[in-house]
Amino acid sequence: MSAAAKQLAGMLDELGRVSDEPGKLTRTFLSPAMRRANARVAHWMRAAGLTVREDATGNLIGRLEACRAGSPDSAAGSKNGGVRRPRPTKTLLFGSHLDTVRDAGRFDGALGVLLPIVALGELRRRGVELPFAVEVLGFSEEEGVRFSSAYLGSKGYAGRLSASDLKQRDADDVTVRAALKKFNRGRFSLPKPAHRASNLIGYFEVHIEQGPVLEKRRLAVGVVSAIAGQTRGRLTFRGKAGHAGTTPMALRRDALAAAAEFVLFAETLSRGCEPLLATVGTIAVTPGAPNVIPGEAALSLDVRHPLDSSRRSALALLRDVAKMIARRRKLSVAWQRTQDNGAVACSPKLTALFDQSVRAVQRRSVSLVSGAGHDAVVMSALTPVAMLFVRCRDGLSHHPDEFASPADLAVALRVVIDFLLRLAHDSSR
Amino acid sequence: MSAAAKQLAGMLDELGRVSDEPGKLTRTFLSPAMRRANARVAHWMRAAGLTVREDATGNLIGRLEACRAGSPDSAAGSKNGGVRRPRPTKTLLFGSHLDTVRDAGRFDGALGVLLPIVALGELRRRGVELPFAVEVLGFSEEEGVRFSSAYLGSKGYAGRLSASDLKQRDADDVTVRAALKKFNRGRFSLPKPAHRASNLIGYFEVHIEQGPVLEKRRLAVGVVSAIAGQTRGRLTFRGKAGHAGTTPMALRRDALAAAAEFVLFAETLSRGCEPLLATVGTIAVTPGAPNVIPGEAALSLDVRHPLDSSRRSALALLRDVAKMIARRRKLSVAWQRTQDNGAVACSPKLTALFDQSVRAVQRRSVSLVSGAGHDAVVMSALTPVAMLFVRCRDGLSHHPDEFASPADLAVALRVVIDFLLRLAHDSSR
Repeated sequence: MSAAAKQLAGMLDELGRVSDEPGKLTRTFLSPAMRRANARVAHWMRAAGLTVREDATGNLIGRLEACRAGSPDSAAGSKNGGVRRPRPTKTLLFGSHLDTVRDAGRFDGALGVLLPIVALGELRRRGVELPFAVEVLGFSEEEGVRFSSAYLGSKGYAGRLSASDLKQRDADDVTVRAALKKFNRGRFSLPKPAHRASNLIGYFEVHIEQGPVLEKRRLAVGVVSAIAGQTRGRLTFRGKAGHAGTTPMALRRDALAAAAEFVLFAETLSRGCEPLLATVGTIAVTPGAPNVIPGEAALSLDVRHPLDSSRRSALALLRDVAKMIARRRKLSVAWQRTQDNGAVACSPKLTALFDQSVRAVQRRSVSLVSGAGHDAVVMSALTPVAMLFVRCRDGLSHHPDEFASPADLAVALRVVIDFLLRLAHDSSR
Repeated sequence: MSAAAKQLAGMLDELGRVSDEPGKLTRTFLSPAMRRANARVAHWMRAAGLTVREDATGNLIGRLEACRAGSPDSAAGSKNGGVRRPRPTKTLLFGSHLDTVRDAGRFDGALGVLLPIVALGELRRRGVELPFAVEVLGFSEEEGVRFSSAYLGSKGYAGRLSASDLKQRDADDVTVRAALKKFNRGRFSLPKPAHRASNLIGYFEVHIEQGPVLEKRRLAVGVVSAIAGQTRGRLTFRGKAGHAGTTPMALRRDALAAAAEFVLFAETLSRGCEPLLATVGTIAVTPGAPNVIPGEAALSLDVRHPLDSSRRSALALLRDVAKMIARRRKLSVAWQRTQDNGAVACSPKLTALFDQSVRAVQRRSVSLVSGAGHDAVVMSALTPVAMLFVRCRDGLSHHPDEFASPADLAVALRVVIDFLLRLAHDSSR
């Protein structure tokens, strides 16, 4: 394994200890740990030669300018006097997120920020200069833990934050807007896109696979062809609270029992309609006492499918069944859609280039569909996207046991360096 | 309606506004609102002629000594000199609890404390003196909201607090022992019974029915013959957290799906085995994020039946089914029993006397089984118990709409006064 890969593994370990909760890894949007994480990553960015800033959404942005030696626009005044106008330097984006789920692993997100930093540091060490600018983006929010709305970081960078995003509330009833206003010391307005689309080459994200395919195929890395569409929402069943010892079963309007039926229906539907994935990840009942029948049950719903039409059909069915459960039990049910992302196709051109690098490094390549959403989903609205997946043990993620081997990290690093050199070569032709 | 009944309705209204949560009624063990409630009720006790103290468990105790005029032991020194030793004065206990569930109604518990105070005040106004002492008990905890363990107040009074009660922890990880130690300014040891059983006449509790029978029978009050047995416990299903977008359904070990199956089984079993009541009132999943498969789900279970053998059979079945669900889904399940109370028979002798008073006031009487547990369950270990139920609208309790009409309160008050006079008459024969 190269020194650079060792360095990367060490950085992932170190960043994995920057947490809001003792004994486990949890970093949420704009939290104290996120600020410490940004400071640490900024240090590594500077060491690799990048200039660093934070934007209004708390994203960390490290930028390496293009090498311009000998290019016409490096001469002052050439803009005004020259016959031939210089081509503006384009920017290549690398990135992922620095926030985590609760009790997370240390690779999800962090890998896609730290690996390009190490790759750029390695090129610098070798004396290679790139004919395009590179930005490495550490997005402040992707997991949707603090607020129901996810992708807040990349949305901010891409100028896609909406008024409804800003209205989302956390467990302490703080809105996204209020949190951002506080972060920006009292000033906050909806950010504009960080770049014009015409100035960008594309967005590249390296991420652990979070699934079992690469492990099954015995490959360290694979290239992503598309990202499954994803809808997130919140359902609230409302019945009537009552005494657990005196309300006859026939008179109960138990919101938790209705929620339980829905949870099991979502599971049964998904099992029957692969590759549909429907997940209830949170549930809260009120009043919430052992001797009181739950009057209200609120749950999260996460639905994914590589085909938008299938995802939409599943959602309609889930919604109908929730209504039927509620009607039969004399409850009401309210739906709130908090996130809705169509499936995203990766850029065929950039993906083909990535594929060449993968074949050059590990001989074989494989094309994967991502079941997980990624910042690339939001970034695809701004610029073409491409993604590289790295094998992770047992396909496990969102868990402290999440693991990608140093050997696989070394392969991914070589692929990204090869890709940068290929792109530099193409650009200079 | 009598002035006394109006006074009682007004006191219930006023106490119903003493809450830990703005806009709703919630008073939990040793909370600031409980301290304010004790202070307010103490004021009313004193106004009715009672002397007031608080015990080490936070119970409020108002005592009215027996009228001893003319009795031999009222003369100082009679203990030493008299040939005939005086019969010690016995004590009659009235009581219920002053804590509430979350977002509670204002009658559950409070009625059984305030009604006897008003009854004693009314007897005093009429110049009636009783040949026995009376204590009115406002228990500090019955609902089991703050800790999983319920009846902490009456257990403290009756000297039945156990070491395992003291180990229970609240949501902030504070133990019962630590909370009581703080309440007692650093000193706390397991309390002894407040009385010798031989010095007590019995324990009487007035409570809203929390069920539909009296309403159906068009009666203001009824006499309780027995209290159903009750077991409370906590189940924890443990599976594995994982990514909601990348973990195939077949590989999931979703703890919430297992919990949902259990919730529905408990409901189905209860529906098929009336009058069995099994309730899951709380559920918590971890990690608890919309895009993470729940790795752990903890739920409360409350099981009641008038027959102890049927309750035990149901519990064994629920336990077996939880294990089967867990095994089939490759999860584990842990059980913890937090409370276990056998069915309690009310004292036939005292209940017969109560029944006479009910017939005297509302002509007809009715005998009821209580599905809810009450402080009388714990007090039955110390002394014979009797209970009077008051009709409540729609049988509803543990809910802000809980309601007993002023006219029904007036009937209950007349019954209790009649009962006290009858008992005084019996005692002096």
